[in-house]
Amino acid sequence: MTSQLKRTLTRELPQFEGQTVKLQGFVHARRDLGGVQFLVLRDVSGVTQCVGSGLQLPLAESSVEVVGKVKAHPKAPGGFEVQIEDFRVISAATEPTPVEIPKMEWNVNPETMLDYRVVTVRGLKERAALKVQAELVAAFRDHLRAEGFTEISTPKIVSAGAEGGANLFPIDYFGQNAYLAQSPQLYKQIMVGVFERVFEVAAVYRAEEHATSRHLNEYLSLDVEMGFIDDEEDVMGLENRLLGSIMERLKQTCAAEFELLGATIPDVPAHIPRIELMEARQLVTEKYGHQVGGKDLDPEAERLLSQHYAETEGSDFVFVTKYPRAARPFYAHPELNADGSVNGEVTRGFDLLFRGIEITSGGQRIHDYAMLMDSIASYKLKPESLEGYTEVFKYGMPPHGGFAIGAERLTAKLLGIANVRYARAFPRDRHRLTP
Amino acid sequence: MTSQLKRTLTRELPQFEGQTVKLQGFVHARRDLGGVQFLVLRDVSGVTQCVGSGLQLPLAESSVEVVGKVKAHPKAPGGFEVQIEDFRVISAATEPTPVEIPKMEWNVNPETMLDYRVVTVRGLKERAALKVQAELVAAFRDHLRAEGFTEISTPKIVSAGAEGGANLFPIDYFGQNAYLAQSPQLYKQIMVGVFERVFEVAAVYRAEEHATSRHLNEYLSLDVEMGFIDDEEDVMGLENRLLGSIMERLKQTCAAEFELLGATIPDVPAHIPRIELMEARQLVTEKYGHQVGGKDLDPEAERLLSQHYAETEGSDFVFVTKYPRAARPFYAHPELNADGSVNGEVTRGFDLLFRGIEITSGGQRIHDYAMLMDSIASYKLKPESLEGYTEVFKYGMPPHGGFAIGAERLTAKLLGIANVRYARAFPRDRHRLTP
Repeated sequence: MTSQLKRTLTRELPQFEGQTVKLQGFVHARRDLGGVQFLVLRDVSGVTQCVGSGLQLPLAESSVEVVGKVKAHPKAPGGFEVQIEDFRVISAATEPTPVEIPKMEWNVNPETMLDYRVVTVRGLKERAALKVQAELVAAFRDHLRAEGFTEISTPKIVSAGAEGGANLFPIDYFGQNAYLAQSPQLYKQIMVGVFERVFEVAAVYRAEEHATSRHLNEYLSLDVEMGFIDDEEDVMGLENRLLGSIMERLKQTCAAEFELLGATIPDVPAHIPRIELMEARQLVTEKYGHQVGGKDLDPEAERLLSQHYAETEGSDFVFVTKYPRAARPFYAHPELNADGSVNGEVTRGFDLLFRGIEITSGGQRIHDYAMLMDSIASYKLKPESLEGYTEVFKYGMPPHGGFAIGAERLTAKLLGIANVRYARAFPRDRHRLTP
Repeated sequence: MTSQLKRTLTRELPQFEGQTVKLQGFVHARRDLGGVQFLVLRDVSGVTQCVGSGLQLPLAESSVEVVGKVKAHPKAPGGFEVQIEDFRVISAATEPTPVEIPKMEWNVNPETMLDYRVVTVRGLKERAALKVQAELVAAFRDHLRAEGFTEISTPKIVSAGAEGGANLFPIDYFGQNAYLAQSPQLYKQIMVGVFERVFEVAAVYRAEEHATSRHLNEYLSLDVEMGFIDDEEDVMGLENRLLGSIMERLKQTCAAEFELLGATIPDVPAHIPRIELMEARQLVTEKYGHQVGGKDLDPEAERLLSQHYAETEGSDFVFVTKYPRAARPFYAHPELNADGSVNGEVTRGFDLLFRGIEITSGGQRIHDYAMLMDSIASYKLKPESLEGYTEVFKYGMPPHGGFAIGAERLTAKLLGIANVRYARAFPRDRHRLTP
């Protein structure tokens, strides 16, 4: 009889106080006190405590069905418990899990956690991180669609790298040399000629040998490209609105996940502060005494600059603009001088820093064929090797620009996850090809 | 002055009759009659005729800005034309396009069309196909999210094939052997243990040497997996509702694209007809005299069976159920006999036929560890090689099932595109790695 009940989710229990419900889920934890058995049932929406007697509890992670009465219980997680009237094992675990799912913590044996990822990913915090990422990606898409963007799907098997020849994974493509795409850069630019405004959500691949806490060899890239712009300010404006939408959505859908992870959802200012790169380098040196190496910002400079904007403007975000040409790829649009001539030193490229780390590179791209060929020559690249890329610029490409956000890096930074690998279900790194 | 106008899209023109608007877009076609110049401007929303005098028209595909007055003009495409008051070339094409975009047809020199895909993809019909696909994918996601599904992102770099060892593209992964994923099958099953209901939209890879009109070596797979089911009927019910939502959305958003392509959007019955495979084979033989080879349905049988259901029930869709084990992979859930024992011959796998072609394979999967190990043994597979897959079934996986839809194949079939390669922006086939 009771098994004909419609399934109730644990988060819906408050609506059913005093009534009999049917729950389905996994045995998250269990305790047998002789006469009384407790089990914590985990379903997609949360966990709830169930109490019964005379039950043979199966191993943790077994999937089960509980029919019982909902009672308010201030000390139980969620404030309710279910008094078991009927209990059924749907699918019994045949072995204890290699680690106890409710007792895991991210910082304990991280490699072991990844080795057993097929079950450790069921942990509440692990799941929360992936749920936040799914919502973040959904908000990204919904916002862009509302601004007239079209989603595209571009090849990941390519004949050459978009960002140059380094860090490519080789593929044997029916005996031909091919590579995994590092970025949809050139394809999204081509598609601006079709849909004017495009985005893509897809994996990209970087064969970087070094292991850091902020890089993955396979990651989900949230790519945007926008045509008929005036300059990179239009692109930053779009990203500003987009981030606002994403954070608003996370507030609506993921408050519990942020609470579980002890993280806060940032407010996105209506106008994210901007600072030119040269000024930013100077500020970090003058205010914090940090000498910045290289041509752009080093990780410490990124951290200090973010600190400055958090303290002075209460902003977790800052755009660093006007990157030098030496720190940007050949397709970055140069700044123009007042007379319209090309400034050979500075580009219209920008980075977006969030809580001390770069989460986006973006900018205006070169759309003029002659300017592009000049740029290729000055970067000492071979025009033949880029022909597939340059061809389309003969056909009236409008001014355009865009950016890319690494979904895992943004998720990790939002949630305070120290290593980006834990913001991906099944990460790939230098040594890890499984699970 | 007028350049300070906000941009208007061509599809918005009817709202602006008699007013001055600013359009931006590409020169789709042009004609110079001496005193008068006509140009057809193409933007993301459509095309419109613009008329002016004394203009120097740039090459086709140049991007341009037109300011002018909107006038009703029954013979012009869309019923309106713009009388040019101000004209500006935003970015001039530097060469004529290799083919004339407005005069292309899919069936003329298809290889040439693909060679020059970076510009031929701008064609109205080419763009319409990709627009329909983008809407179809968006509707797929929105429907599943509304039914409580979570989007996942699983690895495409894998250590072994999910469907067996054949047809895999090898990757050099830091000197280790790895492959491009054929399917997210095992990962989506694992993730049922986390989110219960999951989906993924991502490219998959098949190293099939043969060139057919229905296969791609890289395609966009719309993957679904659903836990806590009773049997495959729950999965077919979901797919039935999902297709209903998708077609409803296409009616709302893509009517113009279907009209342009001379295609009609199918009605999805509230209950798509189902027929068991053995019965389907018999029907095709008895009604049409077609002897069906192999263990399942051959392409001619698929065509005839679809014809039968179109004629007798007015349905463009039919589920073929209870596939024999010999035609299904090891993870397909067997049918159970009345006493609960395993039927060694028949599975709970199904295909969905649409207008004469299979667009989905799906079914219930084995969730019981012992049953899975038995199945692996009876398929003469090595259990060691599948350990990464089988491990998770020790931990209480609930009954589950799912399916996958090839986005390009469904798009092509919906639109009457004869070759699936034209339903992808940049297709990969046996010989084609560029553009």
